[in-house]
Amino acid sequence: MADMMKQVVLASRPAGAAGLEHFRLEEVAIPTPADGEVLVRITHMSLDPYMRGRMDDAKSYATPVAVGATMEAGAVGEVIASNAPGFAPGDTAFGMLGWATHGCLPATHLRKLDPSIPATTALGVMGMPGFTGWYGLTEIGKPKAGETLVVAAATGPVGSMVGQLAKLRGLRVVGIAGGADKCKQAVETFGFDACVDHRAYDTARDLRKAIAAEAPDGVDIYFENVGGKVLEATLPLMNTFGRIPLCGMIAWYEGAETSATDQLPRVWRNVLVNRLCINGFIISDHFDRFPDFLKEVAPHVADGSITYLEDVAEGLENAPETFLRMLKGGNKGKQIVKIS
Amino acid sequence: MADMMKQVVLASRPAGAAGLEHFRLEEVAIPTPADGEVLVRITHMSLDPYMRGRMDDAKSYATPVAVGATMEAGAVGEVIASNAPGFAPGDTAFGMLGWATHGCLPATHLRKLDPSIPATTALGVMGMPGFTGWYGLTEIGKPKAGETLVVAAATGPVGSMVGQLAKLRGLRVVGIAGGADKCKQAVETFGFDACVDHRAYDTARDLRKAIAAEAPDGVDIYFENVGGKVLEATLPLMNTFGRIPLCGMIAWYEGAETSATDQLPRVWRNVLVNRLCINGFIISDHFDRFPDFLKEVAPHVADGSITYLEDVAEGLENAPETFLRMLKGGNKGKQIVKIS
Repeated sequence: MADMMKQVVLASRPAGAAGLEHFRLEEVAIPTPADGEVLVRITHMSLDPYMRGRMDDAKSYATPVAVGATMEAGAVGEVIASNAPGFAPGDTAFGMLGWATHGCLPATHLRKLDPSIPATTALGVMGMPGFTGWYGLTEIGKPKAGETLVVAAATGPVGSMVGQLAKLRGLRVVGIAGGADKCKQAVETFGFDACVDHRAYDTARDLRKAIAAEAPDGVDIYFENVGGKVLEATLPLMNTFGRIPLCGMIAWYEGAETSATDQLPRVWRNVLVNRLCINGFIISDHFDRFPDFLKEVAPHVADGSITYLEDVAEGLENAPETFLRMLKGGNKGKQIVKIS
Repeated sequence: MADMMKQVVLASRPAGAAGLEHFRLEEVAIPTPADGEVLVRITHMSLDPYMRGRMDDAKSYATPVAVGATMEAGAVGEVIASNAPGFAPGDTAFGMLGWATHGCLPATHLRKLDPSIPATTALGVMGMPGFTGWYGLTEIGKPKAGETLVVAAATGPVGSMVGQLAKLRGLRVVGIAGGADKCKQAVETFGFDACVDHRAYDTARDLRKAIAAEAPDGVDIYFENVGGKVLEATLPLMNTFGRIPLCGMIAWYEGAETSATDQLPRVWRNVLVNRLCINGFIISDHFDRFPDFLKEVAPHVADGSITYLEDVAEGLENAPETFLRMLKGGNKGKQIVKIS
């Protein structure tokens, strides 16, 4: 009888908010790598907000996860069998291996990791989230020394990269985060100039006043990864010729936080009057730039001038609960699940 | 006693829709040009949607017209007195001379016109509106042959420039206009591939179907100058990496056409999923590019490959009524008022 592995599949699609009932843990046989494939025993998997979008079947930038299929995730682990040149048992590799204890992929879909660097950094600071922050800030945000940047989810892996890179480039950086602890972390751990606790303000108007107090010269770059109240608060603070890289809107992923009135005319007017540039981007379009990202960021991570936080949960069976908690902002730093 | 001139001043600010009561015709003495100034007898003045914004005192990209001050307008006319080198009586000149029969400006604020070209073209096809279309299309729209462009107010001076330039560059061009006559004009006079009558569709959804039928490959560039229902109809048709130059939103200038629900989350999602680029621009920021515009467009106007329509009303006293009619789409082509 074949050795068995575990995986988490999408049990059904959520109508509104996602819940534990939409996931199912299954046991299946560990596959044997075909010609050109590599089998990996997963040690750590990544949980990211984009996965919520994969659970719906609305038109999106990627194919939804099929009901009954394994949830998608980036993960790192140890090669335990290889049927491809370039990979050998004992190697450490990254790939889109899924919510599972094991994964089998063509070698072309795996990246071998430098064993001298902690493997989990390939899921966060030196992986997709860090790259998202770097690309959006540098290519769309076009930061200039002396400008002011606002970024939400400030202690998350995207926000903390954006803020730290912007500080290195001489900008004033105002974070937004949920709770006093995270705000303290944004300033003390990540070196933000200030961080505003959005949970301390009931209305967008009050939140706006708090942000404005920390951004006395207005906002030149709003790195948009949350939408909702934070967007509503920040947009009117934009300076002329401001830039808004847009890579997420977690506040709206589950249909919450909608306004009673149509905000679009006001937003449109703001874009016109202030000559704003809003640019949506999906990081998977830009993986040709990944080497440029690593070239700039890896030395900063090595010397500590860019730091990172990881929130490591234990066990694949806890991945759904951990994921739901993260969607509500319950994580502290890059959310990872330790698998083995 | 000094010779008298007429001018139209802003009598009061509109709360909602603008009406005749917000304007007042006045007689004042014709000024004498001071050192460096030039006096112009206005022959034609321009009416443009942006003037509606100047009547409000909301924060905008330009100072509002003060209550009691002359309404702002570009105009052309004949120099009748000059106290500046480079201008002599009999010259034809363009400047921001206002809603008036005469205007006196520093010579540095006037542009001498080639008398062999109809002076009114400096108000439309070879003036600010044409330049707006050219800049937004080429610099923000970044058109590529084979793509599809949608532009509203298709027979107006901005829309018709955008459409004709896009056709010259090998795009499929779908116009949107109010009424069957204008749609016919967009196709027959301006060479659009198709034009959809937005008045024939009550809902954004129905309008969307009609546009989609004329844009079978989706929309790559939506040149945004109207907002409202047309925006709501067109946005979901955008292809990935689509561009939206945004220079106006006439549908929302007077607070009409607001949706009962908040459209912002849906729009934001669309910008993300389709990696759209929305870029607000104000043409007065870019006058350094005016010579480039004329260099490209003037030969096309001369040889007829770019054509234009003018709607010429008679008499300064009729300017307010003509302006209000234009805001409702009652003009056919570039709205001009013949002054003398």
